[in-house]
Amino acid sequence: MRDITRDNITAAVIASFGGAHDERFRLIVSRLVHHLHEFSRETALTHEEWRAGIDFLYRAGKISDDGRNEFVLISDVLGLSSLVDLLQTSAGATDHSALGPFHAAGSPALPVGGDLVRNNAGEPVLIRGRVLDDAGAPVSGATLDFWHAAANGLYWQQDPAQDKHNLRCTMTTGVDGRYAFTTVRPGPYTVPYDGPVGDLLRAGGRHAWRPAHFHFIVAAAGHLPLTTELFCAGDEYLEQDAVFGVRAGLVLELKKNGNAEDVRGLERDLEPPFYRVEFDFRLKRDA
Amino acid sequence: MRDITRDNITAAVIASFGGAHDERFRLIVSRLVHHLHEFSRETALTHEEWRAGIDFLYRAGKISDDGRNEFVLISDVLGLSSLVDLLQTSAGATDHSALGPFHAAGSPALPVGGDLVRNNAGEPVLIRGRVLDDAGAPVSGATLDFWHAAANGLYWQQDPAQDKHNLRCTMTTGVDGRYAFTTVRPGPYTVPYDGPVGDLLRAGGRHAWRPAHFHFIVAAAGHLPLTTELFCAGDEYLEQDAVFGVRAGLVLELKKNGNAEDVRGLERDLEPPFYRVEFDFRLKRDA
Repeated sequence: MRDITRDNITAAVIASFGGAHDERFRLIVSRLVHHLHEFSRETALTHEEWRAGIDFLYRAGKISDDGRNEFVLISDVLGLSSLVDLLQTSAGATDHSALGPFHAAGSPALPVGGDLVRNNAGEPVLIRGRVLDDAGAPVSGATLDFWHAAANGLYWQQDPAQDKHNLRCTMTTGVDGRYAFTTVRPGPYTVPYDGPVGDLLRAGGRHAWRPAHFHFIVAAAGHLPLTTELFCAGDEYLEQDAVFGVRAGLVLELKKNGNAEDVRGLERDLEPPFYRVEFDFRLKRDA
Repeated sequence: MRDITRDNITAAVIASFGGAHDERFRLIVSRLVHHLHEFSRETALTHEEWRAGIDFLYRAGKISDDGRNEFVLISDVLGLSSLVDLLQTSAGATDHSALGPFHAAGSPALPVGGDLVRNNAGEPVLIRGRVLDDAGAPVSGATLDFWHAAANGLYWQQDPAQDKHNLRCTMTTGVDGRYAFTTVRPGPYTVPYDGPVGDLLRAGGRHAWRPAHFHFIVAAAGHLPLTTELFCAGDEYLEQDAVFGVRAGLVLELKKNGNAEDVRGLERDLEPPFYRVEFDFRLKRDA
């Protein structure tokens, strides 16, 4: 007969998974059980608190659907998503940052120098730069998948006034590794706070705001894909991003110094001076 | 601007909850964040593994409803529920063990000595004993809430062949602190394994069986309530309870030594020899 006590239970649970065939699975489960148990031991978690935690997860399940995953949001506001991004960042490569909930496959392809401003209100921005490998050489044929919120802080999925695929595109670099497009400056916005995560933020005295950002997924054959965000210096929420996505190397100095030369050959003719930012993405070779 | 790195992110997340009014909430969140982050750091959790974890929780949410809480089951099979029970056990009091998913309020009251065998198949058992305080004195007016599975391992909620409230009752002790009732020996059964928890058990090379057990909630004014289970010695699953509820002090030696004297004054007249077990519950005074 097994006498389970507070001293042997953690070893007993870990041992119960000893028959798992996958070594990595065994490692992950054993560390998960260790930390879950240590957490409850250190806090001497009560039944009432345990029930509150179970209820929190149950409600997260109930509010989740195809268009919203509250568990991703829990991971985001507890910094877990960001930590996983940071752990996957390779030396010499651009930092990873949040994917966020509004990425959608099938964005329209735009040629280098194409325009996303169209009929959007807001301050125009020229974003340009190169995709480089970890030795600094241009990567040709790299694909950028790019999306961001409008000046009102809403993505097209949230805003009936925006066209489908507004402010998003894919773009493929040429032999010089260059990309360039014109768009508008996005606004800051909140993560959804009408569910359990909102309760958590309120109990914690926290707000739900994220600083304004541009999303990118950059991929190229022979390299590790990069999911990241670029932020704008001076944003009031850079200090306290609700999902902890800000890294020093991902903050752009937006300067209103764009001139007529900059827009030569672009699809859209912006009137100087306009915001111009340069950013080179660095991809790690897939060894 | 906040530069979030893998070295400062844990402190940043914990600090973000610094405005919480409730000190206990701050402690629990800070230890939760610490252990969640340490877990992902130690395992260098990949995006793919993170997504698998999120998907596991999402599916747990989808299969949960008013009659089934997969999050409780996750907590059970990872030993968390049992550890919380063990942490709440007071010195000098009977060990806590699992509440389980089949407790229901409103069980019919039975007098001391009442019968639950009725038309149930299975081996009859006389269970009797006392409710004591932590000094060993009888507690009069203590309420026992008692329920268990039938010989086929099913609770009445799972088995259309059983009447509502089959094999469950409440009972109040007299001045001698005694309780007694006749019932049948329950069968072992599995926790539900048709959802995410089933996938986890299969990946871990684990089964879903629990040893047979009787459930009790014992409560009395001036004492801390006790939720526990009693198991039967010799059960083949005592070594490997899927939810880690077995404690040495909760295993009953079922001996077939009940005699005619034992059933005198009971509602049901069992034919000797029958299984007879004695168990005294000890409640901690609510200081």
